[in-house]
This record gives sequence, structure tokens and C-alpha cells, in this order.
Amino acid sequence: MPKVTEEHRLARRQQIVEAARGCVVEQGFHKTTMADVIRASGLSAGAVYGYFKSKDELVAAIADDAVGTVDQLFGSLLDRPGPLSLPQVVKILLDHITRMANLPGGDVTRVAVQAWAEAVHNPVIAGIVREKYTRVRGHFTDAVRRAQADGTVDPDTDPEHIAQVLFGSMQGFVLQRLLLGDVTTETYTAGLAALMTRPGRGSSDA
Amino acid sequence: MPKVTEEHRLARRQQIVEAARGCVVEQGFHKTTMADVIRASGLSAGAVYGYFKSKDELVAAIADDAVGTVDQLFGSLLDRPGPLSLPQVVKILLDHITRMANLPGGDVTRVAVQAWAEAVHNPVIAGIVREKYTRVRGHFTDAVRRAQADGTVDPDTDPEHIAQVLFGSMQGFVLQRLLLGDVTTETYTAGLAALMTRPGRGSSDA
Repeated sequence: MPKVTEEHRLARRQQIVEAARGCVVEQGFHKTTMADVIRASGLSAGAVYGYFKSKDELVAAIADDAVGTVDQLFGSLLDRPGPLSLPQVVKILLDHITRMANLPGGDVTRVAVQAWAEAVHNPVIAGIVREKYTRVRGHFTDAVRRAQADGTVDPDTDPEHIAQVLFGSMQGFVLQRLLLGDVTTETYTAGLAALMTRPGRGSSDA
Repeated sequence: MPKVTEEHRLARRQQIVEAARGCVVEQGFHKTTMADVIRASGLSAGAVYGYFKSKDELVAAIADDAVGTVDQLFGSLLDRPGPLSLPQVVKILLDHITRMANLPGGDVTRVAVQAWAEAVHNPVIAGIVREKYTRVRGHFTDAVRRAQADGTVDPDTDPEHIAQVLFGSMQGFVLQRLLLGDVTTETYTAGLAALMTRPGRGSSDA
């Protein structure tokens, strides 16, 4: 057997993940077969199966990639000194989602929506989605705790409940972007910031 | 041909829609065939095809049913005199979604997630989803306009942008309920209300 470097292994693995993402983006999870992925990757069946045994494992790898970038983003946001503005956190996340969606390899948010539908019926995919989303929502909980400590968000509400709504609104952004096509980082961040603003005039201030 | 009353026709149609919903809930959109729906309905193939030519038409009918109940709900909410509280609107909607999801015919929110994934690749389903969601989001826009007129929401922001976030957070509720299983009307409404509350203490009021 030829000796392959770790770097070479990782590059090949990434080549397969990107081929799989392209297939799911184009034709959906159900219609994509391992044969499609092998063809798209330009590698042999033996090579592909050496890395991934099934479509489920490929979805896990695509999710790892996407969530890894979100982990990094939150890491750097939470490391910043000074008060953390939640609308600013949301803005940075939405910019990130939009940037990832527009990468040349195909819109990865389409893969997310496929994974949601599959998770409802497939326990393996359900487990992957649950793990990743618990993790991402946990980042939002950390951000809410910071905002509560800063005094910009109600400190008397469970930060996990606030994180549910913030995280849920991100999922809704992904969906509306794909299905209605009229949401942008700007419109959505403006909407959230407005909800978080107590109007200074109007009749109900009393 | 036997003479059938309009009432009988509607009852039969509903019988088929409910059979179709049960099939999609159990096995997903892709695995459901017209033959499955015919079997589940207890009617003949000729009878079923007399009402619905395809799975797409059945999905449209399921969506009509679900969105019809949301239309009614918003109608009665917007008819109420006095100020309209957005967290209250969201609470009533979430209770409604949870109630519909727990009906004996099977969790209709699972059908919604299937339809999202299908819409990404199927222009007919995409058209149905776009029409229904534009309609439901429009109700949220009306509710926001009322709240802006009442003075409880920032009047300087486009109500459609605020509606995007509220509607998006409903979609996120549906997803988290199915995929993570830990959101309830109470936790989610508390989270939203907290975002809409300007904290009275804390250091950032200056």
C-alpha cells in the first residue's frame, strides 16, 4: 500500500465532503446515492468508502464543517472585551450564514433543510442534528448570559429560553431566505433590533 | 353515476387529505406514494384520483387546512378591541401550533418540515409554500402595525422586517420542538417577552 500523508488524507476527505454537499444541494438527500457522490468526487468507490460508509456519515461531515465555523465565530465574539449587543451577534451570524450559502460549492443551507426533514424519520440524522443544534444554541445561551451581565437584557429570564428564540429566529432566516427570498441581514437585524427597543414615544409608556 | 351531495363530496375529500397527512407523517414525503394514500383512505383509486391527481395536490390541500386555521386565528386576534401585545399574539400562535401538532391524525408540523425540504427542489411545492407563508407573514405584519399604532413597538422600523423575525421565530419553534424537543409555549413566550423588555436596572441604562 502506498504511504499517504495525513495532509493528503484530509484533502481527499474534504474533496469527498464537497462532492457530497454538491449532490445534496442539487438533487436533495433522498435522490443522492453513494454512486453519485463517488462520481462527483472523481475518486474510486474504494477510496470513498474508505472514508465514509454511508450518506449519514457524509451528512455528519457536512454538518461538522458548517458548525465548526459557527463555533469559531462565537469563540471570537465571546472573547471580545466590553458589552455584547445581541442584535450585533445576530447580525454577525446572519452575515456568516449568507456568506456560507454563497460559497462556490453550493448553498449549504439547502443541505440543512434536507437534514431537518430527514431527521424527522431517521434516528441517525436526528442524533447528528440534535448534537449540533444543542451546541450552537449553547453559544447563544452564553451570549445571552453576557448581555444579562452587561444589563442590556432582562436578567430575570432563563437565558436558555431567550436563546431558544434567538436560535429559532436564525432557523427562520434560513428558511425564509430559501423559500421566500426576501430576507437579508439588514432587514432581519433591523426587525430584531426594533423588537428589542422600547419605543420612546407613543401612548403606552404610562 | 350515483348522485352525491356536496357535503358527501367534501367529507370524502377530507378523508383523503387526512389519509395523506397520516402517510407523510409516518414515512415522509418521498416514500409516500399515491398507492399508499389510496390504501390508507379506504377508497378506490378512481375515487382518490377524482379528487387529487398527485402528491403535490395533496400537499397543497394539507397546507390549505393548516393555514386556514391560522387565518381564522389572526382574524379574531385583529378584531379584538384594545392594544395588541405581540408576545400575547405569539403565545396564542404557539398554543395553536402545539394543539394542531397533537391532533390524533398525526403531527402536521412534520408535514411542514417535509414540505420545506421538498420546496427547495420542487417548483410546485415551492409555489404552494411561498403563497401560504407570504399570507401568514402578512398577518404578522398586520399585528405589528397594530402594535406600532398602540405605541408598544418601535414605529420607525418597517413592520415587514419585524414580521420577518416574528414569523421566523415561529418556524424555529416548530423545528426545535421536533428536533430538540425542549421548547414549549411557556419557555418560548418567556424568551420573546424578555427580548422585548428593556431591563430596568443594570449598568447600561445610562
